[in-house]
Amino acid sequence: MIKDQVFCNFTGLLHNILYMNTTALLDQIAFIKEIDKVKYIQRKTKLFNSDRNENDAEHSWHLALMAIVLAEHSNEPIDVLKVVKMVLIHDIVEIDAGDVFLYDTQVNHSNSDEERLAANRIFGLLPKKQAEDMIAIWEEFEAGETNEAKFAKSMDRLEPLLQNTSNNGGTWKEFDVPYKKVFEKKSVIKEGSTTLWNYAEDLINESVANGILKNE
Amino acid sequence: MIKDQVFCNFTGLLHNILYMNTTALLDQIAFIKEIDKVKYIQRKTKLFNSDRNENDAEHSWHLALMAIVLAEHSNEPIDVLKVVKMVLIHDIVEIDAGDVFLYDTQVNHSNSDEERLAANRIFGLLPKKQAEDMIAIWEEFEAGETNEAKFAKSMDRLEPLLQNTSNNGGTWKEFDVPYKKVFEKKSVIKEGSTTLWNYAEDLINESVANGILKNE
Repeated sequence: MIKDQVFCNFTGLLHNILYMNTTALLDQIAFIKEIDKVKYIQRKTKLFNSDRNENDAEHSWHLALMAIVLAEHSNEPIDVLKVVKMVLIHDIVEIDAGDVFLYDTQVNHSNSDEERLAANRIFGLLPKKQAEDMIAIWEEFEAGETNEAKFAKSMDRLEPLLQNTSNNGGTWKEFDVPYKKVFEKKSVIKEGSTTLWNYAEDLINESVANGILKNE
Repeated sequence: MIKDQVFCNFTGLLHNILYMNTTALLDQIAFIKEIDKVKYIQRKTKLFNSDRNENDAEHSWHLALMAIVLAEHSNEPIDVLKVVKMVLIHDIVEIDAGDVFLYDTQVNHSNSDEERLAANRIFGLLPKKQAEDMIAIWEEFEAGETNEAKFAKSMDRLEPLLQNTSNNGGTWKEFDVPYKKVFEKKSVIKEGSTTLWNYAEDLINESVANGILKNE
């Protein structure tokens, strides 16, 4: 019986050591479960050559791989992991705040009070330090001032441009968006990469020439 | 006229400088367009608390964020960016080779000839050096021997476990998978993280106790 007790104490101790990180882990698992909701958030843009709407998880996955593959075209040296983190998490606030269409003229696009509340709630599920780090990365992306944020934003603008040109005008046609507006919104790409902007500018001009983007 | 010609030569030169990376870029864009197909590949597992199947892009996005959030639980120090690359690309070969269910007893699960051919074709769209790097990362993941590959595989096994427990047994019930098989397949998690394996083992045992996983 004493032997049993010693064994129990030992396994109990072992259990405690192994589970040292349990509180942190359970918070992390709660976050991992919560962000599943990103898969239900429909964007306005459609998949390539398709009439099926893209969701935020698919979009974020695509941006992450674009960032990895296109990193060499960044105007400035970048920490690729930070860019990848930015694009993976940039739309998580939409779980609470919803998706805002890039060409919506009624709604503020970034850093609304609603989005800040959402960031605090959702990233706040994580252990404190990790939550703070994630919120800081999201804020940095939103502010768009660092090299990483500029490149991440280039990815976010480039993907739907590629989609619309593959979809005979896509959302440009569907929502009657003119050239001037597209040019203005997409020129953000230039901040992250001149090379990608040159390519994007050609695509936009070709779209006007092909009649899939109206020249206004 | 001479002035015009000089100007043309100058803009031509500028154009060439700006477009130095064009060939690489066009190859990268071809790859970016091709991998959109990952969004159509349906997995057997369902989203959390849902009867909607998950697709490979959503799955890969989720694994990338899990890797970032759970990195501290890795048994060994890891290069997080490499793990993230692994999980972001690990299912791209399924564009050609299709998804194989983890508990399928008829089909070989990894590194089939079909998957190798797919890796060569799809990553081969990229510029040569980048294609070689991507194939090497995919091979490293498949081999499962490095610290990064072990941790990436832990993520790949943990996500559907979380999904099935949130879905009243999910694919375990749907395909009549017994405890023994689940335990065997999921124990791979231990290679990447003892902490996560302890948590996973508890979940599996609870699932048997709750009757959502049959005790065989």
